[in-house]
Amino acid sequence: MKTTSDKFLDGRVIAQQPAHGYRAATDPVLLAASIDISLGRKVLDVGCGVGVASLCLAARAPDATISGLEIQQEYAALASQNAIDNQVNMSIYQGDLNAPPSALKDQVFDQVMTNPPFHRNKSLSQNSGKALADHETLDLSDWITLSLRRVRPQGYFTMIHMAEALPNILQALVNCGGIHILPIAPRRGHVANRVLVRARKLSKTPATILPPFIMHRGNTHVEDGDSFTKNAKKILRDAAPLKI
Amino acid sequence: MKTTSDKFLDGRVIAQQPAHGYRAATDPVLLAASIDISLGRKVLDVGCGVGVASLCLAARAPDATISGLEIQQEYAALASQNAIDNQVNMSIYQGDLNAPPSALKDQVFDQVMTNPPFHRNKSLSQNSGKALADHETLDLSDWITLSLRRVRPQGYFTMIHMAEALPNILQALVNCGGIHILPIAPRRGHVANRVLVRARKLSKTPATILPPFIMHRGNTHVEDGDSFTKNAKKILRDAAPLKI
Repeated sequence: MKTTSDKFLDGRVIAQQPAHGYRAATDPVLLAASIDISLGRKVLDVGCGVGVASLCLAARAPDATISGLEIQQEYAALASQNAIDNQVNMSIYQGDLNAPPSALKDQVFDQVMTNPPFHRNKSLSQNSGKALADHETLDLSDWITLSLRRVRPQGYFTMIHMAEALPNILQALVNCGGIHILPIAPRRGHVANRVLVRARKLSKTPATILPPFIMHRGNTHVEDGDSFTKNAKKILRDAAPLKI
Repeated sequence: MKTTSDKFLDGRVIAQQPAHGYRAATDPVLLAASIDISLGRKVLDVGCGVGVASLCLAARAPDATISGLEIQQEYAALASQNAIDNQVNMSIYQGDLNAPPSALKDQVFDQVMTNPPFHRNKSLSQNSGKALADHETLDLSDWITLSLRRVRPQGYFTMIHMAEALPNILQALVNCGGIHILPIAPRRGHVANRVLVRARKLSKTPATILPPFIMHRGNTHVEDGDSFTKNAKKILRDAAPLKI
């Protein structure tokens, strides 16, 4: 498989990833930035791909104990190699969230983070021209339900996904509270294209809708170069945390 | 019952309401502003209180055919009187959403709008010091489910509520699509305190998270006088529509 070597967090993380298919960009970096390990150090990255979110979290929070679960063998192998190359201790499990490897099934985590591939969301399949691989049978609701099983009571679940999936996400977050919703918009005044959601398992705390996080400066696309806002740059380049 | 006479939409609407208990302020005005009658003229206001949302809608959209349902006899009577005083044709039904009067039960509407009293939301009752009246037994989920029964297929349901209830609202909006979510924040950069949600019954369209609507100028409260933003003023004073 042809891979490329890509830099994240201004080179703090270098990751091999397939040249074609799903390629990590800003989403896993934002997801990792939103994980506050003062809420719990033991973190599972569900559907970790080549490990970009996990590597970014490790770069910012060396005290985190990070595991990753990835169903696709090639991606899991790259994640393990990327961990070694970045001198990060991570446990990468190759397996199915629906029938996790026993080493993982016996564990619960303080926090689960996930950036599910969009095309696994059957309920939004009208927006996806991509064919589902045979093993990608989980819809978004199942993905969330199964991920929550890996969260300890009062632990945290954090997800980044398409903004349009927010109803599906919240519908699946049963028996959760303290839900923080961070819309992510390409520009100020624009509709959100992503949403970060954090929930606390078994909490009864009411939800919070945060002001949107804005990725790019200006109201329209005017330049091909770097147009990230100051806040986006801090997170994407300087490994700053993203408060949610 | 002691009442006061209050102006809305810069005096376009004058409504009598009880001096104590729930009193209409900006919420019903924002709700009414968000109703686009080009999507359907026949509108039901569920839990209409003294009718402020309905009267504001009638003031902006004289072609709307508006009905209101209110369980409390005193509020329903004031709504009927307010309609007469404002020279608006409205049908006010006194009754329970859970067992609607037959004249209402036989109807479906193009649009249902609702601003449920906060203290009826049992699931958020930790935030309410108000005692529940005996007849106020509907929680937010039931309120939405029963309201949706009054919406025709492909018709619209629009609600304004506490932002913290968004997960409960979206969980109750089953068999709906085209969900538009408008967070309403007191000031730019602040957490939302209200949310406007519009959903289309039986639609499969993905959801949209709109940029927040900002009520007040500035980042902090600095003056006791009028601090509404230009956009808020347009809606609250000039009866402008609120795009959702």
